[in-house]
Amino acid sequence: MAAEAVIKVVALCGSLREASYNRGLLNAAMEICKDSIKGMEIEYVDLSLLPFTNEDLEVNGTYPSEVEVFRKKIEEADCFLFASPEYNYSVTAPLKNAIDWASRPPNVWADKSAAIVSAGGNFGGGRAHYHLRQIGIYIDLHFINKPELFVFAFESPPKFDSNGVLIHEETKHKLRSVLLALQAFALRLKSQV
Amino acid sequence: MAAEAVIKVVALCGSLREASYNRGLLNAAMEICKDSIKGMEIEYVDLSLLPFTNEDLEVNGTYPSEVEVFRKKIEEADCFLFASPEYNYSVTAPLKNAIDWASRPPNVWADKSAAIVSAGGNFGGGRAHYHLRQIGIYIDLHFINKPELFVFAFESPPKFDSNGVLIHEETKHKLRSVLLALQAFALRLKSQV
Amino acid sequence: MAAEAVIKVVALCGSLREASYNRGLLNAAMEICKDSIKGMEIEYVDLSLLPFTNEDLEVNGTYPSEVEVFRKKIEEADCFLFASPEYNYSVTAPLKNAIDWASRPPNVWADKSAAIVSAGGNFGGGRAHYHLRQIGIYIDLHFINKPELFVFAFESPPKFDSNGVLIHEETKHKLRSVLLALQAFALRLKSQV
Amino acid sequence: MAAEAVIKVVALCGSLREASYNRGLLNAAMEICKDSIKGMEIEYVDLSLLPFTNEDLEVNGTYPSEVEVFRKKIEEADCFLFASPEYNYSVTAPLKNAIDWASRPPNVWADKSAAIVSAGGNFGGGRAHYHLRQIGIYIDLHFINKPELFVFAFESPPKFDSNGVLIHEETKHKLRSVLLALQAFALRLKSQV
Repeated sequence: MAAEAVIKVVALCGSLREASYNRGLLNAAMEICKDSIKGMEIEYVDLSLLPFTNEDLEVNGTYPSEVEVFRKKIEEADCFLFASPEYNYSVTAPLKNAIDWASRPPNVWADKSAAIVSAGGNFGGGRAHYHLRQIGIYIDLHFINKPELFVFAFESPPKFDSNGVLIHEETKHKLRSVLLALQAFALRLKSQV
Repeated sequence: MAAEAVIKVVALCGSLREASYNRGLLNAAMEICKDSIKGMEIEYVDLSLLPFTNEDLEVNGTYPSEVEVFRKKIEEADCFLFASPEYNYSVTAPLKNAIDWASRPPNVWADKSAAIVSAGGNFGGGRAHYHLRQIGIYIDLHFINKPELFVFAFESPPKFDSNGVLIHEETKHKLRSVLLALQAFALRLKSQV
Repeated sequence: MAAEAVIKVVALCGSLREASYNRGLLNAAMEICKDSIKGMEIEYVDLSLLPFTNEDLEVNGTYPSEVEVFRKKIEEADCFLFASPEYNYSVTAPLKNAIDWASRPPNVWADKSAAIVSAGGNFGGGRAHYHLRQIGIYIDLHFINKPELFVFAFESPPKFDSNGVLIHEETKHKLRSVLLALQAFALRLKSQV
Repeated sequence: MAAEAVIKVVALCGSLREASYNRGLLNAAMEICKDSIKGMEIEYVDLSLLPFTNEDLEVNGTYPSEVEVFRKKIEEADCFLFASPEYNYSVTAPLKNAIDWASRPPNVWADKSAAIVSAGGNFGGGRAHYHLRQIGIYIDLHFINKPELFVFAFESPPKFDSNGVLIHEETKHKLRSVLLALQAFALRLKSQV
């Protein structure tokens, strides 16, 4: 049981910017996980190398090589941590693109658990969460309901430094709560025999 | 374990019409459950007697008597079957009203599983499902992802007779699949120790 | 032309509470309109007397008397100002109920313009706006896109006094901008001949 | 007035597939427009050459050259016709990507009208419409409310031939109604002086 209980998380970021705050949230999550959460490992997976989804690129049931590599990562994960910024009131194109590739048959997201975090102005990325959750219905993800984490990146006190590193202790604490809730939900969903 | 394994479902209908197709779906679900699903009981709970939500009606932390009766039913349930028609691209007022009353502290929906079915024209009630699912995030319901059941009530062959009784075998079969998925998900979420 | 150019707004509140902040927004809007906006009149219309929507209450194409009175108010309006609080991540039941009654044939909302304001915690009612906008597609409302007004009612400085009266000048200023945008959009949509 | 009254439509397709049904809808729309709608011109604009949105690619307020070309097309249009398939219950990545590029300052979508059509299984692309409409709020598009066109591509009778050409007269007729409604709404919104 001990060995099996390690929950493997794949972390995905909707922004491709180097100094993205959303990427900063994932970096902080990985650090928090390593430092203080047992039985959980987070691996960051880059989305920037994927081509745009296009069924014409699927030949004889195989996908472009970058897509195959990405799909394998998703397949091997137990659950997902999405850092999903809000662009024009919805999810970003790079994130949606990655989701769509991994949903192609066989859908490698299926029946796994997930959590969403975001940073941004206004609602802190909030509107993108609900679009992502609707997407999750079809690809069969089980999102945790609570806590939801929306980081109001431009309100004082500062949450990130100029390199996009999360420096706000209260936000780190909330982020840790998200990770613990994701771990608990993943274990709960796996416990079925 | 045997006794505990009986999943208690409360069935709620968004339409107050006597001959509502959505009510017809719940009647069919109850019959199917009694006839062919072990370990699951469905109780229909009426929403028509509740007053409109209004915090001014909450006195010293108590609710109007009809509300208290309703909240107790929700509290005792393991999970929920919503028959949620689409009125103007969203959920109906009677259903939203009931949801809001039972969410008042303490939120008696919390951490339970749920499924949605609907009948109607156009998308068969589909748009209402996604609003209901967003509502479920805050009240902390865990919806099954699949199967989704949208009954295209006005396409041939006829799905209901003139009294709103479901007469279409294929739809009955799909409805049974929804019930089995709800039961399985409820058991899976309960299995946590 | 002068006389025709008076835009008649009906103001509707999703909360039935006496001291509702959302009601407070509408009161402030009416005062602002009277004081400093020419060519626009706002009338508050109460939603609390309507029965729950139920087609069984429609007899020979007529509606219950309270419904007929309400529908006439909607029919005579040029446009609408919704104060739409967020209950459980969506619109409230009293508001949805009123919308549904006035959408019954003939749909008296059709082809008119509208704006939404809200007050509350968290996103200040934001999630309810987007559900209301989806509802608006079917009932054929044309919502202004900007400005959107979400009043963060529980953040300092205080926005309302203990009676629910809006006391925050900056919010009043934003509210006035919403009214001007609504007026301009209503005029623009009417200008077609 | 005569010359000004020509409405310039840019048509955008969310699918990159050669034989895409959604692309087929746009081809049919262009043909219908040329044949039987006066005062309206539709230009198809390809989205496949755009890089993924990434603020790191914006240097000194300029955008990559493909992006500049695309933005100019959007800027010169009066209104938009989106063929927006539903991928995993939302819009596609290529479409969202294009939308996001053209929304970068200055937002070249602003205050223009738009319509959505789609083809697909299940709801015929319907869920993607509502996500696109929410995106439209922020980028300030004014969508027509009616008619909505969802083509149920896999139901008989066949709607498209094997090359993705629309062959179904009833759908062509509906598509024409969408175009006429878009033209009328664009003219109505432009008529303000």
